[in-house]
Amino acid sequence: MNTQGFLFERLCIIGPGLIGGSIARMARAHGGVARHVVTTANTEASRARVRELGFADSVADTPEEAVQGADGVVLCIPVGAYAGVMSRIGPHMAPGAVLTDAGSTKGSVVRDVLPHLPAGVHFVPAHPMAGTEFSGPDAGFPSLFEGRYCIMTPLPGTDASAVAKVRALWEAAGSMVETMDPATHDKVVAMVSHLPHLIAFTICGTADDLAEETREAVLKFAASGFRDFTRIAASDVAMWRDVFLNNREALLEMLARFTEDSHALARAVRYGQADFIEDRIRRGRKIRRGLIERKQA
Amino acid sequence: MNTQGFLFERLCIIGPGLIGGSIARMARAHGGVARHVVTTANTEASRARVRELGFADSVADTPEEAVQGADGVVLCIPVGAYAGVMSRIGPHMAPGAVLTDAGSTKGSVVRDVLPHLPAGVHFVPAHPMAGTEFSGPDAGFPSLFEGRYCIMTPLPGTDASAVAKVRALWEAAGSMVETMDPATHDKVVAMVSHLPHLIAFTICGTADDLAEETREAVLKFAASGFRDFTRIAASDVAMWRDVFLNNREALLEMLARFTEDSHALARAVRYGQADFIEDRIRRGRKIRRGLIERKQA
Repeated sequence: MNTQGFLFERLCIIGPGLIGGSIARMARAHGGVARHVVTTANTEASRARVRELGFADSVADTPEEAVQGADGVVLCIPVGAYAGVMSRIGPHMAPGAVLTDAGSTKGSVVRDVLPHLPAGVHFVPAHPMAGTEFSGPDAGFPSLFEGRYCIMTPLPGTDASAVAKVRALWEAAGSMVETMDPATHDKVVAMVSHLPHLIAFTICGTADDLAEETREAVLKFAASGFRDFTRIAASDVAMWRDVFLNNREALLEMLARFTEDSHALARAVRYGQADFIEDRIRRGRKIRRGLIERKQA
Repeated sequence: MNTQGFLFERLCIIGPGLIGGSIARMARAHGGVARHVVTTANTEASRARVRELGFADSVADTPEEAVQGADGVVLCIPVGAYAGVMSRIGPHMAPGAVLTDAGSTKGSVVRDVLPHLPAGVHFVPAHPMAGTEFSGPDAGFPSLFEGRYCIMTPLPGTDASAVAKVRALWEAAGSMVETMDPATHDKVVAMVSHLPHLIAFTICGTADDLAEETREAVLKFAASGFRDFTRIAASDVAMWRDVFLNNREALLEMLARFTEDSHALARAVRYGQADFIEDRIRRGRKIRRGLIERKQA
């Protein structure tokens, strides 16, 4: 906190979509976070919409302009766009500024940001584990991060006060902040988030093929199981394309593990091994109970 | 409808769990469905609990006793238990009675019921596509079936008035009734319900193994994708074991299709084929939109 009681004098949010728009709305609703919130988007339509919605104090036409004089910068763009945006904003960032992000992969983010990071700017990667099936400037809301985890992956030797500021930002948003190294983060989220999305996208296509092939209205009878899968399958295209491409190794490893396990269960079904099947179902129930006890469900 | 305006004089529900208990509650809440609702359960604890909850007019100690004098009988038990229960109740069923069920597989149900079906009893298989993650006598509620599909799979030559009665039962429950043959039913539900459950049970185990192996709190960070999967993974053990074992061929076929498709997407991730990945994500979104338009989501 500075003497005026603001965490950041000028907080710049690059990408005012679901995540960026929610951070901006939260910062303006919360007295202590930012004196001024500036944002920018890559299309004139999005910039105009943010001006209409009024959730930022100002809207810059370019990222170069947006970061000028900002003591806090948050990248809220698809992770595949980091290198390009960093090459543009790096030369314009203020010395002493804190740079953070909201990307779902962390190894690729470190790889793409560091080459463009100016001396004296402190980079603290972060990943708020929150989202909805909606995207764009209209999708955000100030309470999106409340009660959700935010994983920070600061690199060794990072300025401690910069790390503390990013932690304070997410705590102000109502998140529970955890710290781990980027590689562990990427493995954990590959399992709990990226693989489930890959499965959801896939099963929608498999069902659609069957519906076309048999001329049966398979989708008409989507039971509750399938409906849950389609909710996450409605996620943003560019974001998820970039997540898959930038967490490739961990995602492919988790898919391989899942495929082995699904084949083991299929084999038990084929040979009528009731005990094995029951054991797998019980395990799912146990994990569900664990999540409920942790109040994550 | 008989002259007193009841669809059934004495409606017998075998298995007063989530589904059976909901049918009983619906029948008693709905003036025209049944003059008397009798039920039975396979444990004294469940029978005592149904008496306490009071959602049936009477509770019989055995299925043989329960079906006596009933003009309508609904099997609401795991599909693996049908043959055993039918061998017990067949000799005690009233001539002219209508027998139906709520099982999630239909080919196996026809296979297991027909050998025990007495002459003069009309069997009309049905599958209400509704459920929650809870089970047992306390889990049911009268509106469970409202606005949900119920698929009937009557065999050729079945008494038309028996078919009409079962349709009227589900329409009274608020369901949209569709008719198809058992084999088509089994294929459709393998895709939209059984495969998603197999996947959900599996991924919970895969995550649990990873958590143990890496000593990382993978489950702690279960993001929204994973949470949706665990909701269906909390389903009833005996019911799902029996579903898998009794819809084996269709389930294994759908898993094989899904596995091919997931490997195609994995290959695109490995080789950085952004267009392929985007196409798959867009397809998921399209299907989600289709479900929303159908008001299923």
